[in-house]
Amino acid sequence: MDVIIASNETRAKAFLNKIKGKNPLFICTIGTTETGKIAGISAAGAHPEFTDFTPPADAELLLLGRCKSINGVPVTPDGIPTPGLIAMSALGLADIPVLIVSGGLKIKPQIPFLELGGCPGRDIRTGNAVDNVAEVLERARIAGKHLAKTTDYLVVGESIPGGTTTALGVLSALGVKAEGKVSSTLPENPHNLKSETVKAGLAAAGESFGSLAKNPVKAISCVGDPMMAAFSGLVIGAASHVPVLMAGGTQMSAILALINALNPEVLCNLAVGTTRWVARDKSSDLKGILGQFCDTPILAADLNFSASRFSGLRTYETGLVKEGVGAGGASIAAMAKLGDKVNANLLLKEIERNYALLMGLK
Amino acid sequence: MDVIIASNETRAKAFLNKIKGKNPLFICTIGTTETGKIAGISAAGAHPEFTDFTPPADAELLLLGRCKSINGVPVTPDGIPTPGLIAMSALGLADIPVLIVSGGLKIKPQIPFLELGGCPGRDIRTGNAVDNVAEVLERARIAGKHLAKTTDYLVVGESIPGGTTTALGVLSALGVKAEGKVSSTLPENPHNLKSETVKAGLAAAGESFGSLAKNPVKAISCVGDPMMAAFSGLVIGAASHVPVLMAGGTQMSAILALINALNPEVLCNLAVGTTRWVARDKSSDLKGILGQFCDTPILAADLNFSASRFSGLRTYETGLVKEGVGAGGASIAAMAKLGDKVNANLLLKEIERNYALLMGLK
Repeated sequence: MDVIIASNETRAKAFLNKIKGKNPLFICTIGTTETGKIAGISAAGAHPEFTDFTPPADAELLLLGRCKSINGVPVTPDGIPTPGLIAMSALGLADIPVLIVSGGLKIKPQIPFLELGGCPGRDIRTGNAVDNVAEVLERARIAGKHLAKTTDYLVVGESIPGGTTTALGVLSALGVKAEGKVSSTLPENPHNLKSETVKAGLAAAGESFGSLAKNPVKAISCVGDPMMAAFSGLVIGAASHVPVLMAGGTQMSAILALINALNPEVLCNLAVGTTRWVARDKSSDLKGILGQFCDTPILAADLNFSASRFSGLRTYETGLVKEGVGAGGASIAAMAKLGDKVNANLLLKEIERNYALLMGLK
Repeated sequence: MDVIIASNETRAKAFLNKIKGKNPLFICTIGTTETGKIAGISAAGAHPEFTDFTPPADAELLLLGRCKSINGVPVTPDGIPTPGLIAMSALGLADIPVLIVSGGLKIKPQIPFLELGGCPGRDIRTGNAVDNVAEVLERARIAGKHLAKTTDYLVVGESIPGGTTTALGVLSALGVKAEGKVSSTLPENPHNLKSETVKAGLAAAGESFGSLAKNPVKAISCVGDPMMAAFSGLVIGAASHVPVLMAGGTQMSAILALINALNPEVLCNLAVGTTRWVARDKSSDLKGILGQFCDTPILAADLNFSASRFSGLRTYETGLVKEGVGAGGASIAAMAKLGDKVNANLLLKEIERNYALLMGLK
């Protein structure tokens, strides 16, 4: 299997053994925020206002194989396609069922999605970023409990622009050192801008580094995003019954920090599934963040696009985008389900086929 | 197993064999309409305006074991409790996972639910009862296709007040003779009122008996309800992959007539699962409606409340309520899953226990 074990080898191998040959349910938790529109924060959209359309379009891509809310597929300002393309290709190859869950959206996707009563997030610089957190968390927990009964294990991914900034916000509020350690979709990781944004948010909320260590719900409410309540609740509800592969990059450290504060007893049934681009990223440090509070293993799909015939995909090798829409976790789940029938190279062929189809390329 | 085979014995037994010992997913499709508020049409609520709260409250009962949108549980004007109590008890006993799907609601339930983009229904006497039918049907089909991959089989039930009147509407539009044959929650089945309501709706739409036989989407749009598009789409999406037990009374004949017009090739993978009260009802004729266009088997949970210690439950034996919220299908699914470990009598004990808890009785 083309999977890199990026931390905690024994637990990582045990997790991989648990999911080999198994049939998961893939959940993509989506949300939008005003934080994602701060200039220079996110590349999850051709320009800031487009970030409202990226999560619903990613969700449509996963369920329909094409977007309805936008033409083509979501791209960065440089035209690099969404990692949703990777997730869609992996899930399609392995015939893995998909459920979309809304944490809170400005634009609703034109597909079926699980509604949890959440609202879109405000700019975290207000210090009052997310409404209704406790209720969304509880509804997600109930959904996770029921969904766990339908599947061997869950893979949970996310699509929310600006998500690493809100991740830094929540990690800081919970007292986890993550400045300079969260990942970015952009060519130059804007660490200073993220830190300033988080500092402004904490100050506006009357909070400081670590002051909300014992109040994870308030940490999301002040400086988090609406995906987090949905994601954490789903994991907490499901993971006492089945393993959960948390599909994402450094944002997963914020979810794990929340779970560590809310329900640490489920941590033993979790792993992070990301991409090689995150695991090997020199401008971020997922392992360094997690090491401060848990020993959850990190698995990384050993994807390599350097030999792709499309420049839009080759660019992933320069460190742009890296992860999102559960791309890494979906790839790991597809390889775990299909065994020798699929590897990173076959995955790339399928991604190229879908990219060509969707972009009208040859 | 305490299950009555009410029609098509060979196919019914084959279906029962397919689901024995299997793990289903139970889906409750909910919706509200103005049709349900016509005086004398529905008893699914203590008075007409309460019918907006009945489906969300039923949904909460299934997921939480208690209602949030109302105090206590939904009752008829005579105080007879919702059949959701039967479904909740059966599903709980057998540890069957539940998913709520909204076809279109005035009041949203305070639990996770699958959103399909539908709206509440208007009074069918307008001839313009439901918006967005084709889109909801398509989204439900996609959801059904994905959910089928997570389960051995699906049980799909419904909660929508006034549902037998809209069923009569759609059956009539499709050219199926159902006047005097649909069931009722009320002590006296108001057949004349239902027929007049449907005639007014067809006339307002410029349609007549059978004129929409080849246009099932328009039949729902003119004289149907928002639950129908969601329910039919889920069944169509799922039934080419797994068996589907359609949990309900005479409303299921309208869903089957729609499926017969939309995707008849999936009919072979379906059965209706209802209650003895519907199967033995002298004021309605489910078998007589179905016999006109399909040979889908009818199974009926052999529930009997005559020995209950609660008068509210004993009243079910006088022909009130009879069915709803997938009560019959949920009971059949629980017995099929647990085999000898549960029968109708044990189910009644569990229903009584929950009824006492929820109503504060001893």
